[in-house]
This record gives sequence, structure tokens and C-alpha cells, in this order.
Amino acid sequence: MKKALVVGTGLIGTSVALALREKRVTVYLSDVDARAVGLAEEFGAGEEWTGQEVDLAVLAVPPHLVGERLADLQKRGAARVYTDVASVKVDPIADVARLGCDRASYVPGHPLAGRERSGPAAARADLFLGRPWALCPGPETDADAVRLVRELVSMCGANAVTVGAREHDSAMALVSHAPHVVASAVAASLEGGDEIALGLAGQGLRDVTRIAAGNPLLWRMILSGNALPVAGVLERIAADLAAAAAALRSGELDAVTDLLWRGVNGHGRIPGRHGGPVRDDTVGGTPAGLAGR
Amino acid sequence: MKKALVVGTGLIGTSVALALREKRVTVYLSDVDARAVGLAEEFGAGEEWTGQEVDLAVLAVPPHLVGERLADLQKRGAARVYTDVASVKVDPIADVARLGCDRASYVPGHPLAGRERSGPAAARADLFLGRPWALCPGPETDADAVRLVRELVSMCGANAVTVGAREHDSAMALVSHAPHVVASAVAASLEGGDEIALGLAGQGLRDVTRIAAGNPLLWRMILSGNALPVAGVLERIAADLAAAAAALRSGELDAVTDLLWRGVNGHGRIPGRHGGPVRDDTVGGTPAGLAGR
Repeated sequence: MKKALVVGTGLIGTSVALALREKRVTVYLSDVDARAVGLAEEFGAGEEWTGQEVDLAVLAVPPHLVGERLADLQKRGAARVYTDVASVKVDPIADVARLGCDRASYVPGHPLAGRERSGPAAARADLFLGRPWALCPGPETDADAVRLVRELVSMCGANAVTVGAREHDSAMALVSHAPHVVASAVAASLEGGDEIALGLAGQGLRDVTRIAAGNPLLWRMILSGNALPVAGVLERIAADLAAAAAALRSGELDAVTDLLWRGVNGHGRIPGRHGGPVRDDTVGGTPAGLAGR
Repeated sequence: MKKALVVGTGLIGTSVALALREKRVTVYLSDVDARAVGLAEEFGAGEEWTGQEVDLAVLAVPPHLVGERLADLQKRGAARVYTDVASVKVDPIADVARLGCDRASYVPGHPLAGRERSGPAAARADLFLGRPWALCPGPETDADAVRLVRELVSMCGANAVTVGAREHDSAMALVSHAPHVVASAVAASLEGGDEIALGLAGQGLRDVTRIAAGNPLLWRMILSGNALPVAGVLERIAADLAAAAAALRSGELDAVTDLLWRGVNGHGRIPGRHGGPVRDDTVGGTPAGLAGR
């Protein structure tokens, strides 16, 4: 890969651009927001695109715009190969098919990385380091296209994970989208809490609710693009919580303890950040007065 | 304070002992588990108690044992003043009254600090540094007793927060106990997830579920001691999640977005770790493909 085009110079697009620049790839930038391109240029992410032909175009735009932008770019013959970074895959792939795009040169992708902050100013060349990067090629995808996108993933320091689009979206519902809504519901429960209660908050509550600070309008788009899988996960969690509440009211502590054990088991299935086991020595978990006997 | 007795040499008790030792207080240790006392001694937390009279006795035992232990110690005239560190307050105070203990010399307390790991080996002298430490004196509590316990809190580097026992337990349900059950329910939903899905987990999921790794038997005791307030909070969260799932199924994204906004507002009410605003620059929140437009 010698030349790349990044369409959408937000957090993810600009981070991809910075990572590619470190590997001496020529990077062109494009965004509907001219200021975002200007900022990304200032941060050294590349130069404004004026129609140059490139090897790879990375569409870092919201999920519902992937199909449209891909159709535009293919019409202009902008790149040999195309990929996107949208956090849902089934709907954008359906759009791409509906709009009659060339699917051989398009490799659907999704880097599992992010920050609470958005925009080009939050971008970092090492944002993807050691992170999974899902690729969802279909039977119609060209093997050379997949190779080039794998080169992109590798240049960003991420680990490519090949997965079906439907499987990807179900996985995201389970490990990202539903947990986000749950974190929001816990945070929402604090809205009416009194000052003293909030003043007693510990690191545990901060961790549980951290992602609830994310932008609701961005998350609305994601949830909208993965609504049914997310609803399914939320229904199971809501049922577990309603059952736990009923058990607490009737004093059936065994039922609640069973949920806690299932939580320990489920938590143990999350791989550690670098593939190892998750650290258990962070501050904030065990409540006072119960660790000592 | 010259001499103190710590009853229960687990994480919290041993950490209190270590903090007091740094302030040159003579610390005696007691535990039903002789090995736990031996370990705490090895870590320099003090020496085994053999009946010496002390200024302050700190009961670092599970909530349902506070009353019993206090009655024993008062019968022996072990200390001038007593406090405990249990994470629920209404039930232990009721036990203390029921058992006919002297309530003038007893100041109910709860340091808001902990770790996932338990036992004396996990103890740290700085565990309470900058953390709130709830005190729930009643009208019958002696002012001198409160002064001595405040000296303990200050020696541990914590900030005393005076609060009613019922108010304390409601606050804990909101900011600690219910969020723990919710984290467990999210973690429990991962039990049946496939390897690929779990492999795509990010820092957001790790944060939401971190506290779910806590010991279910310890948490059973806590939840049992604060069942109705916790049930009330869980019911509200379960209802919000069920409504969000229904809205996603019917495509009413406004209702879901409203929950996300309430989450942003509620999250904004949590004070930062050192009193300042919560940092928003930690890794993991904004999903790929939505930050750039």
C-alpha cells in the first residue's frame, strides 16, 4: 500500500491516517466538514484529497452513510480497494448491495477501539494497537482486497478477526451495545439521587457507568443499526434484574447468589487486554466489613 | 489514640491496622481465623490481642456479626470506644440495640474503599486515602466517642461524612449494591456467548463488569442486609431496560435516546475521584465509525 484515502476525519478516521503516515503511506483526507479536514491536516494526518487515485479508501463515516459514500467513490474510480470502520455490519452491507456497488473490492471492517472523546483532535496513531479489528468479507469479496485490508490492519498494529456480518452484529450487541444501554440505565438511576448518596460513590460505580458518558446521538445511530440483537440481550438482562429484585423482596437470597456466580463465570470469559487473564487487583470492589471475618 | 484493637484481619481490618501503625498507634489484632492474624502480624499490622485494654476497637467483621462481637467486647471492657466498618448500617445498629449494648460508646462507620482481592495479604496502609468514610452516630452516641472515631478516619487519610443510617443504606443501594447486581447481570449474559464474540470485547465491557468478579458469598451478605432498598433500585433499572428493549423492537429510537441522555446527566452527577470532574479521556467509549462524519 502506497497511497490511501480516509473519508471522515473524526477520531477513528484520523487515527487510521496517523497510523498509516507512520508507515510512510501517502494519506489523503476527505470530510463533509472542511474544518475537520483542516484540523486533521494540522495534526499531520495527511493532505486534503482532490481526486487522486489511491490503493485503499477507508470509509470512516456513520453506518448509514457507508453504502452511499462507497457508491460515490466507486463511480469516481477513487481506489482499488475499499473498507469501512462502522460498528454494525449487516445494514451497511445490505445498503451496499441495494445500491449496486462493486462488492469484490469492498471489505467490511470494524476496528474495536475508541475513546470517550471524538473528533480529529482526540486521534492517536496507536489507538488500534493490540486491539481486535473485525473483517467481514463475503463470498463475493476479492482475495486481493482482503489482503490489502489486512495490510491496513497490520500497519495499525491491530489483530484481524474474520467473522460473518450477522455474527459480528450479534457479538457487538452482547459485548458492546447492550452493555452501553445498561451502563446508561445505571447512570440514569443516579439522576434523582441526593448529594450525600452521590458523595459516597466509589470507583466501582465510576467504572460501571463510565461509558454512559458517550454521545447519545452517535449511540442512537448504532443502536438503530443493530436494534433487534440489542433488544434480545437487554430483555435477558432486564429479566435477570427483575427476578433478582423479586428474590430480594421475598428473602430468597439463593436466587440472587446464583446470579452473582453466573456473573463471576461470565466475567471470567472476557479475555484480558493483551490476551492474558484480567487483572483482579484494581481498587474498588470488595465492600468494607466483609473481607475480614 | 494510643492503643487500638482491630477485630477481623481481612482486607479492611488489616488496612486500618497498617494505617494506624504508620501513625505510631499500638495495634492489637484479633480474628476467628488464627492464620489471618498470623499473616497480618507478618505484614507488620500489629501483634495478637491477648485482652489488653485499648482506646478504640474497630470491628471489621461481616454486618451480621457486628452486634454479637460488640456485646462480647463491651462485656470484657476491651475499649473506651467502638466502631465498625460494615457496608450496611440499619441492621447492625438494630442488632446492637436488641443485644442491649452500650450505644454511647459505639459509632457506626463505613469506609468507602475496597479491592477485588480480599484477605490480609491484599491490605494497604493507603487504602482509605482521599476516600469518604461514612459515620452514622445516633442521638445516644457520646460526642467524645465520635471525636475518637474521627481521629481514626483522619489517621487513615479518609474524609468523614456524617449521615443517618437509613440514608446511608439507601445511598449504598443506589451507588454500590444495585450497580453490583447490574454488573453481575451483564457479566452473566456473557456466559453463553461464543469465543469470537468474547474476543471482540473492549475496555468498555471490562469496566462495566469489573466489579462482577467480587466474591458472591460476601455480596450475598451485603444484599441480604440491604434487600429492600436494593430491590427498589433494581426494579427501576430493570423497567428502564425492558422499556428500551421494547422501544428498539418497535423502532421508537427517541425513547432509547432519552434514556441515553438521562445516563449522561446521571453520570455527570458522580463526583470525580479527588473531588474534581470525572476525566473523559479514557480509552474505550466512542465506537468506531461514528466519531468521524
